[in-house]
Amino acid sequence: MESAPPTSPSEKTQLLDAPLYAIGFELHELSPEKVTGRLLVTDKCCQPFKVLHGGVSALIAESLASIGAHMASGLQRVAGIHLSINHLRRAELGDLVNAEANPVNVGKTIQVWEVRLYKIDPKNMEKRHLISSSRVTLLSNMPVPEHAKDAAENIKKYAKL
Amino acid sequence: MESAPPTSPSEKTQLLDAPLYAIGFELHELSPEKVTGRLLVTDKCCQPFKVLHGGVSALIAESLASIGAHMASGLQRVAGIHLSINHLRRAELGDLVNAEANPVNVGKTIQVWEVRLYKIDPKNMEKRHLISSSRVTLLSNMPVPEHAKDAAENIKKYAKL
Amino acid sequence: MESAPPTSPSEKTQLLDAPLYAIGFELHELSPEKVTGRLLVTDKCCQPFKVLHGGVSALIAESLASIGAHMASGLQRVAGIHLSINHLRRAELGDLVNAEANPVNVGKTIQVWEVRLYKIDPKNMEKRHLISSSRVTLLSNMPVPEHAKDAAENIKKYAKL
Amino acid sequence: MESAPPTSPSEKTQLLDAPLYAIGFELHELSPEKVTGRLLVTDKCCQPFKVLHGGVSALIAESLASIGAHMASGLQRVAGIHLSINHLRRAELGDLVNAEANPVNVGKTIQVWEVRLYKIDPKNMEKRHLISSSRVTLLSNMPVPEHAKDAAENIKKYAKL
Repeated sequence: MESAPPTSPSEKTQLLDAPLYAIGFELHELSPEKVTGRLLVTDKCCQPFKVLHGGVSALIAESLASIGAHMASGLQRVAGIHLSINHLRRAELGDLVNAEANPVNVGKTIQVWEVRLYKIDPKNMEKRHLISSSRVTLLSNMPVPEHAKDAAENIKKYAKL
Repeated sequence: MESAPPTSPSEKTQLLDAPLYAIGFELHELSPEKVTGRLLVTDKCCQPFKVLHGGVSALIAESLASIGAHMASGLQRVAGIHLSINHLRRAELGDLVNAEANPVNVGKTIQVWEVRLYKIDPKNMEKRHLISSSRVTLLSNMPVPEHAKDAAENIKKYAKL
Repeated sequence: MESAPPTSPSEKTQLLDAPLYAIGFELHELSPEKVTGRLLVTDKCCQPFKVLHGGVSALIAESLASIGAHMASGLQRVAGIHLSINHLRRAELGDLVNAEANPVNVGKTIQVWEVRLYKIDPKNMEKRHLISSSRVTLLSNMPVPEHAKDAAENIKKYAKL
Repeated sequence: MESAPPTSPSEKTQLLDAPLYAIGFELHELSPEKVTGRLLVTDKCCQPFKVLHGGVSALIAESLASIGAHMASGLQRVAGIHLSINHLRRAELGDLVNAEANPVNVGKTIQVWEVRLYKIDPKNMEKRHLISSSRVTLLSNMPVPEHAKDAAENIKKYAKL
């Protein structure tokens, strides 16, 4: 009998993406049309001026797009070949950041995903401000190497495919 | 009497850039013309296929360019507004990666930095392969806010200005 | 008495953007929230394989974003500092291409615009396919130099401000 | 007996790249390691402020990279999938601009090329200033469609392969 997968967003993230877990990000929805998650801005994701490190935003974008493209290619292997990110506003220590990735185009060889990061207005949780917008270009539909079959197995436990 | 700054690359990185330290990167040279450092590819910087996570490469690029631009602007505040990275080759678990950032153009308002990551050939340490190439665009010469004066102080301890 | 501005899209384009006019593009809507236009793919905008030249798509993106940002900054001078374009599908000789630019973020110093190009399905004019998606980053709110006051005058004739 | 190809840079450009020819660009060297050319900044490549149109710089970058990648792939078909350009300095009406494209990485599936544009200092022809720097990502090694065999024939006449 197969054991149930861990259910907390934090455990899920740890299993699916180590660097994302290291900076405190939590994965939520996982599907071929949408990948979402959340980050509380703590010291370990800030640059010295106490604002969210632009490289952390880029890491989130690359991760969410890769996970999404992997699902959209039917769990074949994908590889990011280009990332372009515009940093628009800053998020500060203590801010809550939501992330959402959606496909711009899912081609047979190339996929392009857009990833948007928003900070939630602490005075009004309904209000959010776009802090960065990314485009990730990925080579897709490559065969999964034998030693990496586990990676696809893990994502199957959590994804709506 | 001022105490000497910590001398190990690891301590220096911890003080200057928390997310860079979290993924195991070590800063080496710091000057307005060149910023360098090194990463041993461990589990915490890999994606599930056991290769260096593209978002970690992007994080390194954003960090090194920001530190360089900060020095090149005379320690004024800088803010990354765009990052573009091409992932060219993969680095695997156990590989040693060298990073080098250089200015492409240091303008009064805008700076552009290039950051290259290489993996060292384990059979021949003299040989290296370009694994990614980035362009970081930064808004520069902004005043440093009062609460962030410390950040500039820290970098002064280590940089050749 | 001021004479009425020329009314054809072609004349308007000639006056507002010479390279855009040279490749046969026609500007339509002009406002700080939206800039649109149209291109019939002829030989002069194709690469040797008889498909729309990717550089022509980039030229359209840079143009529409610049015109839009110029209006959104209250007719102050703007300067493109970065363009990133994903080519998603090809358009062929004879295809009709629609272009639309919208602001992603209008900041005081930096503006980011998105420009999308679609080809119209010749069998069903209601149906369109995204062929490219661009992000243009611009420095804005710079003073207009004396010798270039005419440029702003021209755009005032056509824009909904 | 085959007739000799036209020898002027202008005729060569007309045959190899129509939009490049339309804006007045002249192709010079053509090899799998380097593609170069030259543009005199005239009215037809300026934006309304009488400076070189950023979209024209992007068009030049996309063209030179595509021609280079086509040669580097053994004259197989290539398709630009992404272009990223940093505009660094402006060139003005009357300036002479040199362009040079070089491969960053020639992979089996993906090629990345860098294209730099310089303006020549009119007081000292030896001195040049970098005005833009681009990265073009291309999908390569695709079969040439039957109807486009001529395109490869044309480039063979001029290239050092």
